[in-house]
This record gives sequence, C-alpha cells and structure tokens, in this order.
Amino acid sequence: MKFEITTLDPGSAARAGRIETGHGAVETPVFLPVATRGSIRCLVSEELEELGYRMLLANAYHLALRPGTEVVAAAGGLHRFMNWPRPILTDSGGFQIFSLAEARVEEAGVVFRSVYDGRRHRLSPEEAVRIQEELGADIIMTLDQPVSHPADRETAAEAVRRTTRWAKRCQAGRQRPEASALFGIVQGSVYPELRAESAAALVELDFPGYALGGFCLGEPLELMNEVVAAVTGRLPAEKPRYLMGIGTPREIISAVAAGVDIFDCAMPTHIARNGAALTAAGRLTIRNGRYRNDHGPLDPACGCRVCRRYSRAYLRHLFNTRELTAFNLLTYHNLHFMKGLMDGLRAAIEAGRLESFRKSFVDGAAAGL
Amino acid sequence: MKFEITTLDPGSAARAGRIETGHGAVETPVFLPVATRGSIRCLVSEELEELGYRMLLANAYHLALRPGTEVVAAAGGLHRFMNWPRPILTDSGGFQIFSLAEARVEEAGVVFRSVYDGRRHRLSPEEAVRIQEELGADIIMTLDQPVSHPADRETAAEAVRRTTRWAKRCQAGRQRPEASALFGIVQGSVYPELRAESAAALVELDFPGYALGGFCLGEPLELMNEVVAAVTGRLPAEKPRYLMGIGTPREIISAVAAGVDIFDCAMPTHIARNGAALTAAGRLTIRNGRYRNDHGPLDPACGCRVCRRYSRAYLRHLFNTRELTAFNLLTYHNLHFMKGLMDGLRAAIEAGRLESFRKSFVDGAAAGL
Repeated sequence: MKFEITTLDPGSAARAGRIETGHGAVETPVFLPVATRGSIRCLVSEELEELGYRMLLANAYHLALRPGTEVVAAAGGLHRFMNWPRPILTDSGGFQIFSLAEARVEEAGVVFRSVYDGRRHRLSPEEAVRIQEELGADIIMTLDQPVSHPADRETAAEAVRRTTRWAKRCQAGRQRPEASALFGIVQGSVYPELRAESAAALVELDFPGYALGGFCLGEPLELMNEVVAAVTGRLPAEKPRYLMGIGTPREIISAVAAGVDIFDCAMPTHIARNGAALTAAGRLTIRNGRYRNDHGPLDPACGCRVCRRYSRAYLRHLFNTRELTAFNLLTYHNLHFMKGLMDGLRAAIEAGRLESFRKSFVDGAAAGL
Repeated sequence: MKFEITTLDPGSAARAGRIETGHGAVETPVFLPVATRGSIRCLVSEELEELGYRMLLANAYHLALRPGTEVVAAAGGLHRFMNWPRPILTDSGGFQIFSLAEARVEEAGVVFRSVYDGRRHRLSPEEAVRIQEELGADIIMTLDQPVSHPADRETAAEAVRRTTRWAKRCQAGRQRPEASALFGIVQGSVYPELRAESAAALVELDFPGYALGGFCLGEPLELMNEVVAAVTGRLPAEKPRYLMGIGTPREIISAVAAGVDIFDCAMPTHIARNGAALTAAGRLTIRNGRYRNDHGPLDPACGCRVCRRYSRAYLRHLFNTRELTAFNLLTYHNLHFMKGLMDGLRAAIEAGRLESFRKSFVDGAAAGL
C-alpha cells in the first residue's frame, strides 16, 4: 500500500489523497460501505461499482465463523469469493467480539461464543492477523481492546496497554507482509493523555496507517470531535488515518476537517432497510402516509438511478407491502448520498474551501444527518 | 393489440408469433415474470430488462388494495408507477380472491375480505375491468370463477356459465377499449365438454385473446395436458392463448406444443427465495452442505451474470447468513433460465423441430423441472 497526499486544506487539518493497493487505487477522504459477511446488504457488487465506490469493508470475525477462512481462501481470497476485484479493508472483529456480553479478555486473546452456533472460540492477535491474511484483504487491522463509554481511567489505561502489546504481536505474527498493510488502532477512550500514550506507542511501532478505535460507543459528538482532533495531531502526517465505525455525515465532515482519511459505517445501509433515506432536505421516512400520493422523487436534489426512475409513492408502496426490492432501492440511494458527500468533501479540500462546505452543510436542511 | 403468427411447427400445434401493444412488441411463446404488487420480488426492473424480458404480469386485485387504483392512476398508470415502459398484462385477481377461504360468489360479483386489513370488499365484473383500465395494462382479464380440483360436474358447469355471463358484463363495462385488449377466460375444470362449452361461448363473444384458467389447482399433469390440448383446438387459431399461472418447464413445453402462446408463473422467483435454482442438471438446493467448498458456478451450462460472477460456495454462504442479496442473485438466475427455455422453444418452432427439443428435454437431466 502506498499513500500520497495530493492537497492540504489551508483552513483545517483536512487533506485529499490517494491510497494505492494491489487491487487498485482509492481517492481519500473515502467512505467504505460495510459488507460484514462479504456482501453489502441488499446490493450486488455491480451496483456498488456503478455508484463509484472503489473500496469496501468486510469483517474478518464474521467471515471466519461463516463460511470459514478456509472456504474463502480456497476460493482464491475474499476478492474472488465475493466478486469484488477492488480494494478491501477488513476489520479484525475485535469491536464485534467485545460487544458480546460473554466476551472475556485474557492476555493471550479474547474468548467468546459464536453468534451463529454458540460454540466457544478464542481469538489471539496472531490468529486475527492470520485470518485476515488468508482472506487476502488489502488493509487489515490489529486486534485491539475497545472499552465502552463511559469507562473509568484505569480500565481505559489497561486497554490501551493491552492494545499496544497485541499490536506488537500482530506485527510479529505476519506471514505475508507484502500482500496487505496492517494498521494499528489507537485506543484510550475519551482521555486525551491515554489517547496520546496509545498513539505514541503505536507510532513507535511504525505502522503503515493508523485507525482510531473505540468511538461511537456512546460519547457525545463534541467530545468525539475533540478527541479525534487531538489524536490525529499526534499521528504521522504522511500516513492514512481511519476512524472506525464512523459515521453520520456531520461526524464525517468534522473528522475530515481533523485530518481523517477513511471512514466506514453501517448506518446508511441499515436505515435504508427501515425505510429511511438520506436526502438534501434531511432524513425522510418513506413509510410515512404523506407520501402515499407523492409522485416526485425520493430526493429532488439527487440524480441517482433510484431518484431518476422511481417515485416516493412507489417506494412507500413497496415498503408497505414488504417487497424486498424496496431495501435494494433505498440502500442504493443512501450509498449514492454518501458517495456524493465524500466527493463534495474532496472537491472542497481541493478548492481550499472545506470550511465553507462545512458551514453550508450545518446551516442547511441536512444538518441533522 | 395485434397478434401475428410468424411460424407454425409442422409436428405439433405450436406456433411462434408476435404480440404488438401500445408499449411495444413481444415475441411468443412468452413467459411473464410475476410482479404481483408492481415489483418482481427481489429484482429491479432494470434487471428484468437486462434479462431480455419484454412483458410482465401484475395483479389488479393486489394493486387495487395497496396502494389503491387511484394512486397508480395518479402516477400516470402502472407502467410509470413501476418504471416499466414495456407491455404489462394484469390478472383481474379472481384466482387470488377465490383462493381465500371466505370468498363468496354472488351473481353481482365476489365478496371477500382484504388480505391486508380484513375489510370486506366486493368485486364485480364491471369493477374488475374499471380497475384494470385505470391501471393501464396492455392486456387485461375478465373476472372469472375458477373452481378447485376436484370439482363435481354441476359446480364446474355453474362456474362456466357464470364465467360467461361475467365475461359479457366485462365487455359491456369497458370505458377505454382502445387502450387495452380484454381476454376471456375459459373454465370448465377437467370436463372436456364443459371446457368446450366455455370456449364456444367465449369465442362467440369474439375476444381479442383467450386465457385458459382454472389449471394448476391440483389436477395431474397428464390430465392438464389433455384438457389444454382439447381447449386450444377450439379456440381461433389467429388469436393469442394464455395459460394462466403455468408453469414448470415441462408444463410449458407441453402446452407450447398444444398451441399456447403466453405463460406466467411465480415458481421461478418463489423457489429462488428458498434457495432453489433451476439448472440444466435439474433443481439445485444451494443451502446444501455439499456446496460449502464448491467454487464452481451455480449452473456450469449457464452464461448469466450470476453464474459468470459468483460461486456456489458464495451463494450458499449468503443464504446461510441470511444475506438478502442471495434472493436477488437466485431470482436473476432462475428468470434467466426461464428466458433461455422460452428462447429455445421459439427457436425450435422456427426450425420446425419442437418435438426433438421436447424429447431432448424430457430425456435430459432437467426433465424433472
């Protein structure tokens, strides 16, 4: 993986850049749609390509349980298994595992029960790397220990130190370092000094990129913004930064201004399946009775295939009669919205006017998104 | 609507032809995918077009209940509502209504409860025509009275006579006869003389096309074949014939040989959602454990987008982790299979070798389909 910064925004820490991988290049800042189990829910990969996405996120933990790492490896890797010849980033699954009630941390690794069959599994840092290498992703993640919010200082400090020890073991456990880039994950909850300690320890280990983990766990947006900005300032400027699991448009805009390059979030695809659309006028709930006879597009400001071809009345009808095509159409639109947001952010950085882009967003009808 | 027969098969009653409507032309024999509520389940209309389909079936009864005829009419008709600018055939919904336990037949029409909210509705022949005219379909159906199998002769005879009386009322109730072609529906259960009576009465009424209703209700295949062949022989050769709700590949092949031109059936899309694929080697159940590590295509004999791009192992994985994309991919493949079957039948008729096509199918691995 190579990362090149092509433009710096004069009024913020934002940058536009380009990540090059063995499966092609991606312009940053970039939003990665979430294909947890090797499929964007309700969308085929041809549609993702049509939307202009060039990189997606999959979850190594889920794929290791189903269908099993060996099945994906036998297919020739995840790219071939899911028919996505472009870049893939995998998360180790630490976040998902720590969300399970029964997960138990030991120094050797984390012990948990499978969400599929209840069987007990153990995931060590070495195993997390081995799985991701076998899946063949272009960017892979260390196994970290996130803490939920609020966490007391001592718990957060212990998690930071374990995350650093595990990060070293992940590095040492690499078998195919040339095939993928391993990112370290900065932890430290909302404590600036712990985040600084985590960042310093990982920078010392010299990763090709850095992720910011442990956000989106209940802390207020302002606090997250503050901590993110503090952390990015402590990371090497020339390496890509990835804010894991974030986020909403306003979270992304703030974090881009703080110098983050990569994002992923299930929100746009998740809310689509509940009938919610991201639009220039804010969030629209298509099930609403007011759209029964509304023959205009979902988002009049949008030029996507769905907005060009289908009406609110039709989409509402599909949702109300449980036609699964509705999920596909809203997922497509929401991912188009996110792609447009990222393209807008990138163009604003290139034009040196990110602040006015941000201001026009927060003053606009979509500010609440 | 215009119907033109372009080729007659020398060895059977089969014909190849062409239906022209205000929304374009369709080559026959033709299979119509089922878009009951104005959407092919799990497929967008762009995909149907990509598959080469030029006509689909929707259900007037379902659309009248949800979203309501007036909503579809306000959208400019069903073609615009569902973004399908090509021909549409609507069924009046008689079959669906008579499948409901509580449906009651009166001479004025049928009384039933909505499947959506349990409210009582009445559908008269005049109303069935009015609804379909407002939806704006190219081919519409009279309201008929099917009987389930087995039916005693008296019940079947009464249903035939009511179907004829209702057919007359449907004709008399037309408001926009120029916009669509109204087909009469031949009933008569498995009684050849009742089928003959029904056909004669409807031919007397001079419909632009004829449907064969009341099949697929439990009678054996051989019996259906016999009755279908007897009925088509009594219908005017120059008008299109539509076998409603049929069928499986072998049913279709038989009926084409008996001179049927139009088919519809939910089977290919329905079984797709249960993980079953129509293939040249017969029915394949993708959830089966034997496909866990099978990285070949669903159907090695198929050239569809799904078979070119995805493996059995991947499709099985999607089904087993409840990824909805699986429904889309198998639906696409199954409709591609049906399109290939119809193209094969048409080509066989044009080459004057339908019998050898039929024989090679029933001697082949897909004979059970």
